[in-house]
Amino acid sequence: MDLIEETLAAIGPLDRAAESGARQRLDSLTKPQGSLGRLEEIVARYAAIRGDATARMGRGAILVFVGDHGVAEAGVSAYPKAVTVEMLRNIGAGGAAIGVLARRFGYELIVTDVGVETDTSAKPFAGVRYRRVAAGTQNFLRGSAMTLVEARGAIAIGIDTSREMVEAGATLIGIGEMGIANSTAAAALLARIMGIDAAKLVGRGTGVDDAGLRRKIEAVEAALAIHREIADDGISILAAIGGLEIAAMAGACLGAAARKVPIVVDGFIATAAAAVAIRISPQVRDYMFFSHRSAEGGHALALEALGGRPLLDLGMRLGEGTGAALAMNLIESAIALFQQMATFASAGVSQKIE
Amino acid sequence: MDLIEETLAAIGPLDRAAESGARQRLDSLTKPQGSLGRLEEIVARYAAIRGDATARMGRGAILVFVGDHGVAEAGVSAYPKAVTVEMLRNIGAGGAAIGVLARRFGYELIVTDVGVETDTSAKPFAGVRYRRVAAGTQNFLRGSAMTLVEARGAIAIGIDTSREMVEAGATLIGIGEMGIANSTAAAALLARIMGIDAAKLVGRGTGVDDAGLRRKIEAVEAALAIHREIADDGISILAAIGGLEIAAMAGACLGAAARKVPIVVDGFIATAAAAVAIRISPQVRDYMFFSHRSAEGGHALALEALGGRPLLDLGMRLGEGTGAALAMNLIESAIALFQQMATFASAGVSQKIE
Repeated sequence: MDLIEETLAAIGPLDRAAESGARQRLDSLTKPQGSLGRLEEIVARYAAIRGDATARMGRGAILVFVGDHGVAEAGVSAYPKAVTVEMLRNIGAGGAAIGVLARRFGYELIVTDVGVETDTSAKPFAGVRYRRVAAGTQNFLRGSAMTLVEARGAIAIGIDTSREMVEAGATLIGIGEMGIANSTAAAALLARIMGIDAAKLVGRGTGVDDAGLRRKIEAVEAALAIHREIADDGISILAAIGGLEIAAMAGACLGAAARKVPIVVDGFIATAAAAVAIRISPQVRDYMFFSHRSAEGGHALALEALGGRPLLDLGMRLGEGTGAALAMNLIESAIALFQQMATFASAGVSQKIE
Repeated sequence: MDLIEETLAAIGPLDRAAESGARQRLDSLTKPQGSLGRLEEIVARYAAIRGDATARMGRGAILVFVGDHGVAEAGVSAYPKAVTVEMLRNIGAGGAAIGVLARRFGYELIVTDVGVETDTSAKPFAGVRYRRVAAGTQNFLRGSAMTLVEARGAIAIGIDTSREMVEAGATLIGIGEMGIANSTAAAALLARIMGIDAAKLVGRGTGVDDAGLRRKIEAVEAALAIHREIADDGISILAAIGGLEIAAMAGACLGAAARKVPIVVDGFIATAAAAVAIRISPQVRDYMFFSHRSAEGGHALALEALGGRPLLDLGMRLGEGTGAALAMNLIESAIALFQQMATFASAGVSQKIE
């Protein structure tokens, strides 16, 4: 078995006994039953995923994958392609938003170049890992974005990275990305996989104007038409119209689920990666927390189609794993409440009148 | 001038120059403009409130006020009245939910008995301040809940407490409460002040059954009828149908605003206190962040009527300042991003294509 098959074989169902143990303790804590709302649901699912009724929390890790997109040449982004490599350096150096949040919350931040156009590995940026599959994808308006070998290679990097984090003690993994034009690829993937209209999914990304928005919609519609004959499996779709960093994020989801670690999905582009991972292995859905509802295009629609209720709704649309980091911090708060609150018995508080 | 009048006189308009300075820096940070969504609005308003374009952050403080309610005898709560004093001890000892969150986020937690029925001040609970105005309120179905002197006394305690916190370095103040039957008083206040139907506002509180819910609605409707002739000013309404801990929270809002410190309003009951404070001094509204949309009754309606957009929507209905604490942590994250992110210039990142 290769790494991907081995990983898929290891993804099993959640542990309902651990979940029910956690729920029992939740009901013993000094609060009206259910009054912590979704924080209680978070704890129960965390316990079910980890197979641990005590919901022990290790470290959080955020995996940011960075890659370029051939479709950028179609004028679908408000920023020049050079921004990908510039932001790679900035994220590695800790100056980007995700660096601030990772430091603040004490999360391991792993930044990986899986396919930036400009190769900086000879004079590497601080804080960046180089596992380059290609110098960006090809323009999917003129052929396949990647070969199947490239797509599988990028997925394997994601699996590897999350596996390494779990071995180092991570019990919560957030996925994020950077890559000029990747909201176009993400919209194409979500349109194809979820069957949602391109025009409803495409948003302004980093801030294109009306003409740019029309170009994006046209690009996605054209991509769907050009690649309509490809096989319906996740990896084939990914190779045709996806991106290297999206493939790596999908791999990270699979790798985390195989090790019973919850995945916190960032915004629009990470959700496309989640949709790919679910297409590859439907069970992986149970291991995902959707962090936030992005302001980007049809993120709300995509979440609905995936049955994902976002934890936060703050009008963010930055990517990099920023929404994931905020949600991970919320998940940790829920677990802290679960572990540290007094029980009715320990605090001598009267129960509900029956 | 007495303390309340002096406080009201000190509440001024926000500093728009500081706000615009903060917005300028927000636009220089390495992210698409506006892509941090509501986190950017938080920073701009924090700067405007503080009169500080750099949005310097001091310590956060959470003020929890605890009191009993005469209306509890009408069978409006799922828990016995004894739970108020039991929870006072538990909150003081750090075993309640708010203690866990305050420790986790490093917030000062000030727990004040302003009117619990059972007087424990002779053998004081750890972590509790005693500033008792009365041994609970009177049942407002049979007269006024408080005298005007009591209401003003409880407001003054809130002003005092927030002033003390500001002098000790707090730049963000959350308000929360505990008090069996206080969701009935809060519903009465919101119905009267905001003109919302009692039946739409009343919820299950700590978890009353259908009969209890009917009793709560009847109690609120009766209270509104009994006290319909009282003057329409905030303090008169508060005295007639409010509560001591609600009065103290309203005072804390006024005291914080007078010192240019933002207030983070917890859930349903704290929102009633916020509505009272706004009725007393409309300008105080500008100083408030509404932390979360509670699952309790008509909280969503009350927020809408106040023009308050909650930051979180997690189905919580616990009180104690728990929603405020989570939102304060989010506000701090927004400020950390603002202060620590690299700028386009400092990171050498290309700007948007014009």
